[in-house]
Amino acid sequence: MSDPNNYKATGVPTQTAPPCSVDTERQTPATGGAQRQTPPVASSGMGRFIERWKREDMLKKGCFGLRCIALLFSLFAFIIMASNKHGDWRDFDKYDEYRYLLAIAILSTLYTVSLLLIQVYQLSTNKEIFSRKNSAFLDFYGDQLMAYLLLSAASSAVPLTNRMRENNDNIFTDSSAAAIGMEFIAFLAMAVSAIISGYKLSKQTYI
Amino acid sequence: MSDPNNYKATGVPTQTAPPCSVDTERQTPATGGAQRQTPPVASSGMGRFIERWKREDMLKKGCFGLRCIALLFSLFAFIIMASNKHGDWRDFDKYDEYRYLLAIAILSTLYTVSLLLIQVYQLSTNKEIFSRKNSAFLDFYGDQLMAYLLLSAASSAVPLTNRMRENNDNIFTDSSAAAIGMEFIAFLAMAVSAIISGYKLSKQTYI
Repeated sequence: MSDPNNYKATGVPTQTAPPCSVDTERQTPATGGAQRQTPPVASSGMGRFIERWKREDMLKKGCFGLRCIALLFSLFAFIIMASNKHGDWRDFDKYDEYRYLLAIAILSTLYTVSLLLIQVYQLSTNKEIFSRKNSAFLDFYGDQLMAYLLLSAASSAVPLTNRMRENNDNIFTDSSAAAIGMEFIAFLAMAVSAIISGYKLSKQTYI
Repeated sequence: MSDPNNYKATGVPTQTAPPCSVDTERQTPATGGAQRQTPPVASSGMGRFIERWKREDMLKKGCFGLRCIALLFSLFAFIIMASNKHGDWRDFDKYDEYRYLLAIAILSTLYTVSLLLIQVYQLSTNKEIFSRKNSAFLDFYGDQLMAYLLLSAASSAVPLTNRMRENNDNIFTDSSAAAIGMEFIAFLAMAVSAIISGYKLSKQTYI
């Protein structure tokens, strides 16, 4: 007769021990049957942990990549718009829309650069500047706000550029259109990054 | 002789039992110390459940209120812009920006009305049209998309209105400015609603 706990060592319950001996009773309380389920549960828990860890790693990389895209396109928009001065009416700083677009491109560049620098610093030194909770909040609200600003700036500059291009199509209007396009792509990257940040924020176990 | 588990009935553990009697040992295994903590944990679990339930109720009401605000201001923006025809150059449909603003105001009105109708139907009949999971996803992505569209429409119409108001200030420009303001308020309500929806989505236990 067997001790249900013996399978822990051998994987197969031994058939020799008497079922009702005092020793057996001490080692197997009423929940002995439930204990047989423990090893599979533990391994599936481990599997889930590894899966979650992989997913978190993927999300971190995804967020990093999206911010790199946002940085690149904000920087392009900034450079293209800042150099968009061709004399007479073809100066970007004569139009509120283009100045707003430039300001938001600079802001977005600074925001993404600082976030990426913090991320790289944390990865290289294994030190945390912000706690994980604060960092998750900052990521989510920062990305969301940046996405709104980028969309607002790009949207406000579209009608003016459209109207100019109806009359004449020159290097000034082309550069403006290019800068608007870059800012839209930066917005898309930021919007997806905000959703990922929101997901990461919600999956923090301490909330 | 007493059983340490008696405190479950009286709320206070009895102090008379010898700690190492056989009875006591049988009923309190090695984790007896931990078991003493059970009732406070259970009651705090209940407290947490009630707290969560109250919070969810508050969030539901908050979301409902914010959508009502968004509906009201989208509807105002729609009515004001649609009736903004005063002949000659003062017709809203001569400008892309105002047509875009009107289209998004109509879309936002339809979206919020349909969501509110679904919510009211579900509350009154206790039937669910969508599963809770689908409903949470729909809420979040819908609110977020609507917020982006409202912001984009309002942003694109601002510069034109500003430029018109520099030259002459009449009922056409005033109505346009009012519609833009309404759309901005609807955007703010939708943006906060999107954050609440995202929070609700993340707190679904089955995700």
